[in-house]
Amino acid sequence: MNKRQIQIFDTTLRDGTQGEGVSFSCDDKLRIARRLDEFGVDYIEGGWPGSNPKDMEFFDRAQRELKLRHARIAAFGSTCRAGLDPADDPQIQLLISANTPVVTIFGKSWDLHVREVLRTSMEENLRMIRESVRYIKSQGREVIYDAEHFFDGYKANPEYALATLQAAILGGADVVVLCDTNGGCLPWEIGQIVDAVRRDLLGHSLDGDEPSNGHQPPAADVVLGIHAHNDSETAVANTLEAVRRGCTHVQGTVNGYGERCGNANLMSVIPNLQLKMGYELVSPEQLAQLTELSRFVSELANLSPDTHQPFVGASAFAHKGGTHVNAVVKHAMSYQHIDPALVGNETRVLVSELSGKDNIAVKRREFGLDGLSREEERQVLRQIKELENAGFAFESAEASVELLLRRTRTDYTPPFELIDYTATVEHRAGRGMFSEATVKVRVGDKIFHEVAEGNGPVNAMNRALRKAIQQLYPRLQHHHLKDYKVRILDSESGTAAKVRVLIDSTDGERSWSTVGASTNIIEASWIALADSVEYFLLTDAERQARQQEGAVTA
Amino acid sequence: MNKRQIQIFDTTLRDGTQGEGVSFSCDDKLRIARRLDEFGVDYIEGGWPGSNPKDMEFFDRAQRELKLRHARIAAFGSTCRAGLDPADDPQIQLLISANTPVVTIFGKSWDLHVREVLRTSMEENLRMIRESVRYIKSQGREVIYDAEHFFDGYKANPEYALATLQAAILGGADVVVLCDTNGGCLPWEIGQIVDAVRRDLLGHSLDGDEPSNGHQPPAADVVLGIHAHNDSETAVANTLEAVRRGCTHVQGTVNGYGERCGNANLMSVIPNLQLKMGYELVSPEQLAQLTELSRFVSELANLSPDTHQPFVGASAFAHKGGTHVNAVVKHAMSYQHIDPALVGNETRVLVSELSGKDNIAVKRREFGLDGLSREEERQVLRQIKELENAGFAFESAEASVELLLRRTRTDYTPPFELIDYTATVEHRAGRGMFSEATVKVRVGDKIFHEVAEGNGPVNAMNRALRKAIQQLYPRLQHHHLKDYKVRILDSESGTAAKVRVLIDSTDGERSWSTVGASTNIIEASWIALADSVEYFLLTDAERQARQQEGAVTA
Repeated sequence: MNKRQIQIFDTTLRDGTQGEGVSFSCDDKLRIARRLDEFGVDYIEGGWPGSNPKDMEFFDRAQRELKLRHARIAAFGSTCRAGLDPADDPQIQLLISANTPVVTIFGKSWDLHVREVLRTSMEENLRMIRESVRYIKSQGREVIYDAEHFFDGYKANPEYALATLQAAILGGADVVVLCDTNGGCLPWEIGQIVDAVRRDLLGHSLDGDEPSNGHQPPAADVVLGIHAHNDSETAVANTLEAVRRGCTHVQGTVNGYGERCGNANLMSVIPNLQLKMGYELVSPEQLAQLTELSRFVSELANLSPDTHQPFVGASAFAHKGGTHVNAVVKHAMSYQHIDPALVGNETRVLVSELSGKDNIAVKRREFGLDGLSREEERQVLRQIKELENAGFAFESAEASVELLLRRTRTDYTPPFELIDYTATVEHRAGRGMFSEATVKVRVGDKIFHEVAEGNGPVNAMNRALRKAIQQLYPRLQHHHLKDYKVRILDSESGTAAKVRVLIDSTDGERSWSTVGASTNIIEASWIALADSVEYFLLTDAERQARQQEGAVTA
Repeated sequence: MNKRQIQIFDTTLRDGTQGEGVSFSCDDKLRIARRLDEFGVDYIEGGWPGSNPKDMEFFDRAQRELKLRHARIAAFGSTCRAGLDPADDPQIQLLISANTPVVTIFGKSWDLHVREVLRTSMEENLRMIRESVRYIKSQGREVIYDAEHFFDGYKANPEYALATLQAAILGGADVVVLCDTNGGCLPWEIGQIVDAVRRDLLGHSLDGDEPSNGHQPPAADVVLGIHAHNDSETAVANTLEAVRRGCTHVQGTVNGYGERCGNANLMSVIPNLQLKMGYELVSPEQLAQLTELSRFVSELANLSPDTHQPFVGASAFAHKGGTHVNAVVKHAMSYQHIDPALVGNETRVLVSELSGKDNIAVKRREFGLDGLSREEERQVLRQIKELENAGFAFESAEASVELLLRRTRTDYTPPFELIDYTATVEHRAGRGMFSEATVKVRVGDKIFHEVAEGNGPVNAMNRALRKAIQQLYPRLQHHHLKDYKVRILDSESGTAAKVRVLIDSTDGERSWSTVGASTNIIEASWIALADSVEYFLLTDAERQARQQEGAVTA
């Protein structure tokens, strides 16, 4: 075991959201931060205060709502502007007002950028870096300095690039991060330049040599970090190479989300460092959450998980018939580079052997449900396995899991039962597209049968269902759909493709998610929609009852 | 420019199809082989004769139909079985009967596999390799030897692993390929082991040293290759490192498709080698086809193109507002590692600046259409840009492009015109799901209005349309849908998500593809379906007329 400590800095919530198509609600960001903390990352970069209101709301709610066990929250911003004192710079003040224990600021390392983009002098850029770091340190924050374009800057003008790092160190930076912002470097270039930084700036001897130039080696205990982008498809290799050459702080994102081609993918960096290079970053139990963490974040991002993703993808340890399967049966490791259980993944030899979640009992207690026998729990587990086989994904749809558990109880009475529904889409010349739905449900011994229009078939179904039961359940007016996500699942044949629908709902105080799957998008949508309404009606009635009870007792 | 020749060996059609979810028809494989040849790869591995009938059909049709300018087709198989003479081995005979100029055979390098999987002796395995290579050479083929699990084998038993390579070289192999079959190696391990092979096996001096052990250096002119898998997310880096250390034959697939986490992605390996490492693999004009090649193959695989894919992804050079856009406007290269035009990609600063295809005139001539002015061509180009913005993708739907061109002509008469359609989905208690559609079309001054059922709404629409017009167009009975592909396009909000439908059709002799897109899946499907029928009716009538004319003239 290599005892040298490596810091994991996750920037999924900041650099990750710069990726095209990646967008999280504030609720999503809080949920992800909690999971990252449980997983054991050291830093969570939450956003860029001032770049948009959602990021400021995150820092505000993170302070009040998140109870992190280990991770520290970082806010991201730039150095002060040219000619300004950091204390007078509104952007720096926003960073301070985010009130995080850690602040990341980026500055320019590349002379081209100083001249052409900042349009200021080389000397002024050094002052901006030094004084910004110093000012934020004086406010009691840990400061991580991101040296933007460091590698390109070093190639263009090594002396100046090193001087910018020195400015950050003189200002008191705790961590100095070498960024391959454009992602254009190949691993051996990264290695050579990290070597040069350690030798010429930090005075670290590499081969028993003394520092080779006149730079004054500053405090050698500054932490050196790496921030890689994947434009050359070598971000993981670049990061590993930087660690081999002495970087002990690693930045990246879950699933490699990020601007353009993404950031270094922590889902590969972490297991490579821990399982192959001998570093101990997280506990074995935490590492075994890797696959779940990856899928949780992709569900919230509404991005299809990449089934071929190394370590965590559903196909990462899948073997397609023939010789491989034979060999795997004889020797599990003959076609696998690691034991998939170490990262919470699994070998898949036959498609029918998909395994389900083994935590039904835990979930039942979480939901505060009792009266289920072990046999009934096993029955729900079997049901979940069958449904996941059919395309459902319960990982981020806990309300649907809770309904499965409730429905297993012999005394369960559903608030409504479906009889029929129809959905119609029409194209009429001169009138355009038109959608209408009918819903027929039973409540007790009464039948309700209603019709409604909508801007699409699912919208129309939602309206018809409300028309049918709102008179019985007037509190349904508090129930709203927040988000509706549709995904076509992988399938050999297009017409047989399964569709998965995930619906996020709210009553203004609580939020919950439900899931449906079918080869028919209308049916998949109905399942998720009906679950959402059923979950609301059940849990809302219980909450009302508890509140009334409380009022009577008081 | 580095003059050392690098061979590009593409195995998309063989190892690529081992990837879960990747499947090509024989037509698809022929189309891809043509594109790979135009792009300039040196070898195209077409399949494994005997593993399935489709692969044998490919080799058969490839010989008759493909006129390749540069690439050589390879068939893949294993060494002969233990105890068998290659001339008596049915699998080797199938390989020979595929009649390709090149044969790739793989053999075991790892003693564990020889013992536990092959269950034969170390010596017998060497014989199987040597004699299989020699036999296939004697049949006049170029032989590429894939050393399966070479790196794992070398780590376990370097002497034996080298002896297997030597057996292949003694047999007369033209190329010896070091395979990281499990994808578990990191770049510096690859580098060290390639160094060792060159030193100890090929007698190549690395640092002026003499070969360091007693192996007899065989002919030093054997070509050394690398075959990497992406299980550690370092396949591209591993491949580049192997080339740095002297490999001159590079295996990989388009988009990195392949078993588990995929193969080395040639879409990244090639531009890194050519643009960053100075090798000349293909001409600059061919390299500029890289993005189109990547998207063409993903369309045929019906896999969503990875928008974040390095070099070729739609987001690879996309800049999201703010400082980056500013900087990019000032200096294009300030946030780009290469000029995207070099790989046929483009900088995207604003979403509305998507550019279209610039080859309308070429396509018009291809289709044999005349009578279009330059202005009309520009009009079609504008229309294509607008439709691609709305979610259409014309790259693999040339029939839809031809229809756009035809419809621009003032004398165009459509074979039918849509008035109305409806599609209905019903869930009825006890009767399950039910789908019905109505279609109302005009032909000349007649109205046809029909209704049909189907196993889904699109199937029902297809039947209703046929009912409406088949009496007028009896040859429509020859028109069949071959494939129906649906894709939900990236979208911020689920309910507003666009859907793209791609339909492949055939009349038994010809095949063509059409595309539709909409936020409504029913509408998207209708567009692609109606285009398919319209294309058939137009071109079929012209073919019939030409044949009759021919008959009359004759």
